[in-house]
Amino acid sequence: MSNMYSHVGENLSVSALVVDGDLHLRVGDTQVDIAAIWLRDSCPCPESRGVGNGQKLFNIVDLPADTQVERVRIVGRNVEVEFSPDGHRGVFDVEDLIAADAPPRLADARSESAKRLWRKASEVSPLQWSAWSDYLADPAPALRAVVDEGFALLTGVPTELGQVVAVAETFGFVRKTNYGTIFDVRVEENPVNLAFTGLAISPHTDNPYRDPVPTLQLLHCIHNSTVGGESGLVDGFAAAATLREKDPRAFDILTSTPVTFRFDSADAHLSTVAPMITLDHSGRICEIRFNNRSMVAPRLEPDVSREFYNAYRTFAELLYAPDAQLNFQLDAGDCLIFDNTRLLHARTAFAATGGRHLQGTYADLDGLLSALHIHEEN
Amino acid sequence: MSNMYSHVGENLSVSALVVDGDLHLRVGDTQVDIAAIWLRDSCPCPESRGVGNGQKLFNIVDLPADTQVERVRIVGRNVEVEFSPDGHRGVFDVEDLIAADAPPRLADARSESAKRLWRKASEVSPLQWSAWSDYLADPAPALRAVVDEGFALLTGVPTELGQVVAVAETFGFVRKTNYGTIFDVRVEENPVNLAFTGLAISPHTDNPYRDPVPTLQLLHCIHNSTVGGESGLVDGFAAAATLREKDPRAFDILTSTPVTFRFDSADAHLSTVAPMITLDHSGRICEIRFNNRSMVAPRLEPDVSREFYNAYRTFAELLYAPDAQLNFQLDAGDCLIFDNTRLLHARTAFAATGGRHLQGTYADLDGLLSALHIHEEN
Repeated sequence: MSNMYSHVGENLSVSALVVDGDLHLRVGDTQVDIAAIWLRDSCPCPESRGVGNGQKLFNIVDLPADTQVERVRIVGRNVEVEFSPDGHRGVFDVEDLIAADAPPRLADARSESAKRLWRKASEVSPLQWSAWSDYLADPAPALRAVVDEGFALLTGVPTELGQVVAVAETFGFVRKTNYGTIFDVRVEENPVNLAFTGLAISPHTDNPYRDPVPTLQLLHCIHNSTVGGESGLVDGFAAAATLREKDPRAFDILTSTPVTFRFDSADAHLSTVAPMITLDHSGRICEIRFNNRSMVAPRLEPDVSREFYNAYRTFAELLYAPDAQLNFQLDAGDCLIFDNTRLLHARTAFAATGGRHLQGTYADLDGLLSALHIHEEN
Repeated sequence: MSNMYSHVGENLSVSALVVDGDLHLRVGDTQVDIAAIWLRDSCPCPESRGVGNGQKLFNIVDLPADTQVERVRIVGRNVEVEFSPDGHRGVFDVEDLIAADAPPRLADARSESAKRLWRKASEVSPLQWSAWSDYLADPAPALRAVVDEGFALLTGVPTELGQVVAVAETFGFVRKTNYGTIFDVRVEENPVNLAFTGLAISPHTDNPYRDPVPTLQLLHCIHNSTVGGESGLVDGFAAAATLREKDPRAFDILTSTPVTFRFDSADAHLSTVAPMITLDHSGRICEIRFNNRSMVAPRLEPDVSREFYNAYRTFAELLYAPDAQLNFQLDAGDCLIFDNTRLLHARTAFAATGGRHLQGTYADLDGLLSALHIHEEN
């Protein structure tokens, strides 16, 4: 069964063909083929969608399983459809139907395909610092940098205690953890974590033993009068992509071997099982967990174990390569925002007696992406 | 090259064999084979681990790639190892080495394999309610129920506004979202969400458009003098497991087809791409996203689209089966805690003029698992 309808208007020819109950739409040179059931499920009529919130008012089981396009009519840029067997009628905008073929703009912003990977620190140097006042006037460029390069740097942020929460709240919501709403990064007497010592810390992602992991971290410098204690960032997605290119077998091992990340203290027992490199539903790199301090390597057969360790070593060598690491000093009023699912962060050792006080907090990328969308639309 | 060492003590015979530099340990009837590099990486000596926090002090690249077990000696329950080429020495507890072969107890608590799936409401009836005072004295049974059955019910929780946050803080941390720290579920004049109307809401998971999704939800009834508005819960893991059994092709489609979940309001634009059923690194069901209101079905070729919709419909029929849904009334002082990655929740319609006021908040499973571990250990 086949029906053909067509219409030409405003330099745009639209034609519709119904084959076996499905809709085949041609708009200019573009051809889209649409299953009747998808079309029925996507109907924007007020019976189908809540007015004001646009939320769907019916369930899939409310639609007849044998839904077909019974009749179609092109009126200007509208496609008017009557469905069988239920006789439901819907009016669709031609451009909406074409646009539905494209993936949503920011929805897929989490994998490597939406990023500007940097394999060397020089690719993101010189550093872009946003003045706090400029950032408040227009946060979009800095938020966009977090999505694209994985980090943004603010300067001139008031050095008040707790200010880091105010920074997070410009784009989203703080994620409280066992370290509190805010954690103080300075030398402590009985550190539950090496972060609270003056020791050097090699590149790592934070809290890999949490699930869900905090996807953003903020570090705000209250004051810094010590020598050393430089901050460093490494692009874990870029290193993983290089590994895939140079040593596909090692990449396969690290994406498919679940390892345990663990943290124990008096008031927390956290443990998560995940691969070091996580791929998304389309096989793209979307999350790195790398933390030598809390990783418990799986016990495997000796041969498999050696292969795993070789892969781990090869990945670590890429991550620790001196030219992969972007180094900078955080001074009073500077604030770093970075993607904790992608970037590793590090710091060089500093004198325990010197004064260095950062305040950190965690937040999440979904809030940042929402804020970015709203700022970029305005 | 092979060396054999043995020791018999306290009814336990321990023997060690070194083959090609790896350690083969026999303890009673148990044989464990351990790669030298794993053993070296797992060394508990104070040079390797931070005292007090147990965190690893070296990186994989600090270890020689050709690490081997050079010598081994059994002393009581200790295995004393000398490594080459670096001459490092470590003392391992035999039981620790055997225990390392087993997966950690709570680390893997997120997938179907750690749950008691319930296919019918009758399997979790009659309901177990925990009195607030009993819960405060020992939260473990209710927290354990959230891990095992996916939910717990408290009664006698003070009906003060904001109390739901205090409930969440007994085991973890509140996750703030675009709905605020606390959201009020009652009839609103211009609802951004159908939750804030008196309409019936079919079973769904919350916030599937967030990533990370809030993994726990709490609903606390402040007062309820309306007719209707019963709450319902459905075990999504059980339905997915049934789908895998009865219609493996549909299961494959729903675990491998990424769909978009979307929410738009004046101050939020949220969008996430994920399959309806997510499998973990070992292929086990670990997350359900099911929400007809915010799901945007992917545009696929008509044939593929029909197959996807058939799979979606089959899954929905399992989820909407009347006997799959556990129904109960939340009265003043009742509080429901449930796993939002596993259970779907629903409510029947109620009169907009009646008084029904719930307060909700989100939290995360990692905090709950940590608290449960600590309570169960004490």
